[in-house]
This record gives sequence, C-alpha cells and structure tokens, in this order.
Amino acid sequence: MKITVNKKNLKKALSLVEKIVSKNTSLPILNNILLKTENGRLKVSATNLEIGINFIIGAKIDEVGQIAVPARILSDFISNIIDDKISLIVKNNILSINSEKYKTQILGFDAKDFPIIPKIKPKPLAIIPTKTLRSSLLSVLDSVAVSETRPELSGVLINFSNDKIIFAATDSFRLTEKSVDFKNIYKQSLIIPRNTVVELIRIAGELEGDLLFNVSDNQVSFSNDDFEMVSRIVDGNYPDYKKVIPDKFTSKVLINKEELDKTVRMAGLFSTNIADIKINCSEGKMAILSKNSDKGEIEIVIDAVLKNDPFEVSLNFHYLLDGLKILETEKVVMEFTGQGSPLVLRPNDDKKDIIYLIMPLRK
Amino acid sequence: MKITVNKKNLKKALSLVEKIVSKNTSLPILNNILLKTENGRLKVSATNLEIGINFIIGAKIDEVGQIAVPARILSDFISNIIDDKISLIVKNNILSINSEKYKTQILGFDAKDFPIIPKIKPKPLAIIPTKTLRSSLLSVLDSVAVSETRPELSGVLINFSNDKIIFAATDSFRLTEKSVDFKNIYKQSLIIPRNTVVELIRIAGELEGDLLFNVSDNQVSFSNDDFEMVSRIVDGNYPDYKKVIPDKFTSKVLINKEELDKTVRMAGLFSTNIADIKINCSEGKMAILSKNSDKGEIEIVIDAVLKNDPFEVSLNFHYLLDGLKILETEKVVMEFTGQGSPLVLRPNDDKKDIIYLIMPLRK
Repeated sequence: MKITVNKKNLKKALSLVEKIVSKNTSLPILNNILLKTENGRLKVSATNLEIGINFIIGAKIDEVGQIAVPARILSDFISNIIDDKISLIVKNNILSINSEKYKTQILGFDAKDFPIIPKIKPKPLAIIPTKTLRSSLLSVLDSVAVSETRPELSGVLINFSNDKIIFAATDSFRLTEKSVDFKNIYKQSLIIPRNTVVELIRIAGELEGDLLFNVSDNQVSFSNDDFEMVSRIVDGNYPDYKKVIPDKFTSKVLINKEELDKTVRMAGLFSTNIADIKINCSEGKMAILSKNSDKGEIEIVIDAVLKNDPFEVSLNFHYLLDGLKILETEKVVMEFTGQGSPLVLRPNDDKKDIIYLIMPLRK
Repeated sequence: MKITVNKKNLKKALSLVEKIVSKNTSLPILNNILLKTENGRLKVSATNLEIGINFIIGAKIDEVGQIAVPARILSDFISNIIDDKISLIVKNNILSINSEKYKTQILGFDAKDFPIIPKIKPKPLAIIPTKTLRSSLLSVLDSVAVSETRPELSGVLINFSNDKIIFAATDSFRLTEKSVDFKNIYKQSLIIPRNTVVELIRIAGELEGDLLFNVSDNQVSFSNDDFEMVSRIVDGNYPDYKKVIPDKFTSKVLINKEELDKTVRMAGLFSTNIADIKINCSEGKMAILSKNSDKGEIEIVIDAVLKNDPFEVSLNFHYLLDGLKILETEKVVMEFTGQGSPLVLRPNDDKKDIIYLIMPLRK
C-alpha cells in the first residue's frame, strides 16, 4: 500500500471508529484499526464483534493494500503530527509514515486476521434525517435497561409503521416513548442494543444529512456515502409496553420545568439510599419533601396549577430528573393516575410526541 | 447560633476548605466542616490533621454559636440554593436553613468534638506576594517525591536567606531549583509536605495580595485577614542538593521550546516501558529517537544551535516534558555535562532564576 491522505480526514475517521476498540486481551486483533484501500479511497474500520464501523475517506492511491494497526498508537500519532498531507506506506505488515522531519515505522498485523464486518444486502428500510434519529434515540436512552437480565429490555425498540417511527425503552422502573411522523412503506419492529445506540448517538453528532437504515435477519446498519455502522439486533420480543401507559388520569398538574428540576435536585440531597422523595400536590402549590435519618430533612414549596384532587406520591428523584431532561417545553405536565399506577410526564404542547412514565415504588 | 451570611461568600469559603475533607471512616468528625462565630464574623474550618484551613467571612450575628456539619451535604446544598442571603440557625446540633420557599434541617455534631486547628504564635517570618509564592511552588512541584520512602524528599525545601528565597525539590530522578529575589531579615530553612503545597497552590489561585508566612518548631502557616492554612513541617534534613548541580558543561544546545515539546511527545508514543528516548545532537540539528519492539520506532530531526561537541543521551521523556513545562522562554538551553552526569535545562534569559536537572539513567 502506498497512499497519501489529508491529516484532518484521517484524524476524524480514527476518532469516530476508535471508541469501539477495546483493550481486548482474548482476541488482540480487535485492538487494531483496519486500513484498506477500496474503490480509490481509504476505508478505516474497527469492530468489537457486536458493532462494526467503516469510515471511508478520500486518498491518492499509488498502490493498493491493507494493514491492521494498533488503534492507540496510530490515533495518538496522527493527532500529534502537524503535516496536512500524510503518506502511508505498508510493507511486510509495517506502516511507515515519513516526512521531511521524521521517519516512523508502526508495527501492524496481517489484515487477513482482522474480522470481516458483514455486509447487509442493500434493501433499504428507510432514509432518516440524522438529526431526527439522534434526538429520538437520546430521548429514550436513559430508560434502556443497563442490566442484561432481561435481554429484550437492554435495547431501544424501533417500530416502523405506515406514518410513524416509534422509539421506546423501559427498564421496568420507567418508560419512554417517542414518536416521529414518517411516511414509510415497510413495517418493521426491531430492538437495537444499548451500546449500539450510545455509539450511534455519538457518531451521528458528527454527521450531516440522512442515514440509510437497513435490516437483515439479525443485523441492522446505518450508513451514508462515507460511513457505515453494522450491529447485531437484540433477539427476543419486546414486551407489550403500551398496556402500561394509563389512558386517563386522576389529577394533572402544570409546573415550571426548570424550577421543578432545581427543587428536585435540592430535595435529592436529603433523600435516602433508594433515592426517594415525596411530592405533595394541593391547590396552587407543590411541596417536595425528603428526609434522611443521617443527614436531615428538607421541604420545598413551589407554585403549580393543579386540576382535580390533591395527591401525594413517592418516587426515585433520579427518574424524575431523567424525565424532565428530555422534555423540551418551558412548562411540563405531570399526571397522577392513582396509587400503584405510573406517574406520567409530558411536554406542555399539543404534539403529544413524547411520554415518560415513572412506575410506582414497590414497598 | 443565629446568623445571616452572603451566599457567594459562604459558597467560596466552603469550596476552599472542603477539598481537604476526606471520607475518613476512622475519625468521622473529620468529614465535617466547622462553622463558628468569631469576632463578629463566621469562621469556616476543615482539617485532615495534617493541614488545617480557616476561612473567615462577614456575617450578621444575632446569636453566637458553633456546629460541625457534614461537608458534602452542606456544600452541595449551599451550591444549589438561589437566595443571596442565607440565615443559619443552630440548635441542638441541628443546622436549620430556611427561606420563604424551603425549610431545611441538616444534622450536625457537637463542635467540641472537632479537632482544634493549632494557632502559631504571631512571629511573622515573611510577607510574600501570593502570586510569587504560587508560581514558585508550581515550578518545583513536579520534582517532589511522591513516595514517602525518603520523607525529607516528600516536600518542597524553602530556604530564606538575606536576599533570596530558594524553592527546591527532587525525587532523585530530577531536581528543580527556583530562586526569588527577596529582602529578608530572618534566615530559615524548612520542608513543606507535598499535599500542603498542592492545597496551597490551589487556594492561592483564589487569593490576592500578600500572604503572611509564619513558622514554629514543627508547623508552618500561611495567612491573610480572611484565610489561614496551618500545616505540619516535614521532619528531617534536606540533602545537600547543591553539590549535584554541575558547575560547567561539555556541550550546550539552544532549541525552540514548543517544537521540542511536540517532538518529545511524539517520540514518547514509541518509547519503552521505562519511557526512555534518545537525543542525538550534532551541528545544527537535534535528532530524537525512540524504539519499542512491540510498537515500532520513530526518528525526528529538528533545528538546534549546538555549542561545542556533538553528544548523545538517553532519558525518560516524561522528565523532559516536566522540565520544559516550567521554563517560560521561547527558546530553552540544554546543557550536556558528560555521560553519567545530569542533563541541565534552563530558560534562555539572563535571570538564571530556575534550573532543572534530569539525573542520568542507571542501566
């Protein structure tokens, strides 16, 4: 291999793919990044066997070739050099990078030992604006189960119907559903693993335009002209979460989001180990109470507009903060649906495109 | 106790003192901050038994008193409240903080259980501009031994003579000496523990004006009208480091500091586990070489002005970077004093107020 690339492009490609490279001691080849000439360009690839990422950059190719190079040193080295154009030469599994001022030899490995990142046959399911995909995944991410005890909850459900894409996640303590208007001819429902969602959110922040969404039996890919991410799909059936969403409420309260957020954070300082605080709503006001036998106690009262009866509810304050974080309106709606039923949070608008549920505490 | 204080002042006082509060399980009272009315103001104190800090803020005092309050919750709470004025009421070892919107009770402890931070009898040794003290300590900090195997090296030597204060530190791998012109009537030499230096650097960044420097048999204090820090002194005699400093050189090279810094960082990527790189100086240029049997190798050549003979030296690149960091001139002087003798770094100016030595590698 003998090529010339632009430093900025290579640096960006490395920064996008290297995050999924882990210090894998059982399969050391995974600690590498694959550099490969392909169709007159340079493909930069990494995989952890769950997720594979290809990022393709322009290159002047004098001689085709490929090599697997340790991710850390390659990335650190490219970040540090000041040249705008970099010449990469591969011979005997050694990558040489030379300029007038320096000569470098980085020891690499045979590219044939690098795992193949599967190709999904090109039957595009949908073309989604990257920004929409990213913000929808961000909205539901916190509700994805971190534990793998129920594998089907360890990912985000993405459900394509005729006129909507619905994103949903629940760890059985809270649930988020976000829907996006979208004309689509396919119907499909799949669960994308948490790690894939995290990486996709990170990378999508660096991309523009649309992403092609593609699915096979057990894999999904997101791609554009320069970028492709392939991931496994979570095996299993997503629970029928819709039946948990209450269709009516007992009481409803309208409240300033930022003020509630600050108040809950302060009350949280005094919460017990299981992080619960108490909310007491009566006409015109909401009292937030928290008590801890080691630390002390606090009561904070803020203005609120209550519809129907006063109510009192205990909940984990972290869950409440996570819910407030994803609502984008200045005021938010809290719906009390009875003791032992979920507490519902919604934005104060007519779109009704997002709903956040906090399940009742089991004592 | 019943007082009113300004939130900003209290928050600043807490942030300055709380860093030395550690999660001490053997002596839980040390996890607290002492609040005490004193001469019409509020004294905020913390100690880890090695270092004690008092910070005094203005207060409107309706009733004198004192209490020890868990540092974490007090600091988190004060950071979160929006009020400008805060009323603090202490009764039965409970600190109540109330306003129109909230009522809080923080459980505290009897102030009598809080360790007394010793008073040093007021015989001031020197009055030093805070900025000078801070920058001098920063210059020598990296050379202080982190290990306590030789306790006398685990601190900074401060040496007052008639017309100078000299700051010195060495971990036996490198040595820094910084001198400051200073008219002084006392002569004194003392070793200040590394942790004290770290905290003093941190706090001095928030202070203005001068600091009063005061010494007793086994303690030192730094203070101004609002602030006082008392620390133990390291017991022991500082080695006669002066004799290690070479009085002449074999070769001398003048080099651009930033370029050398970047080059050494790049070479460091290819260094071995003991972090050594090789420097090879000949007429008009300096070559930096590094080789690692796992990663590969690099050679970088930069411009340099050499006086006398070519030389070659191996050294730990971290030590070289630490040295470059404290030199403030655009070009720096490197003096080769022979194989088996220290490599010397100096700023390229006539002040000669700072010298950094890298001891030869022992193979």
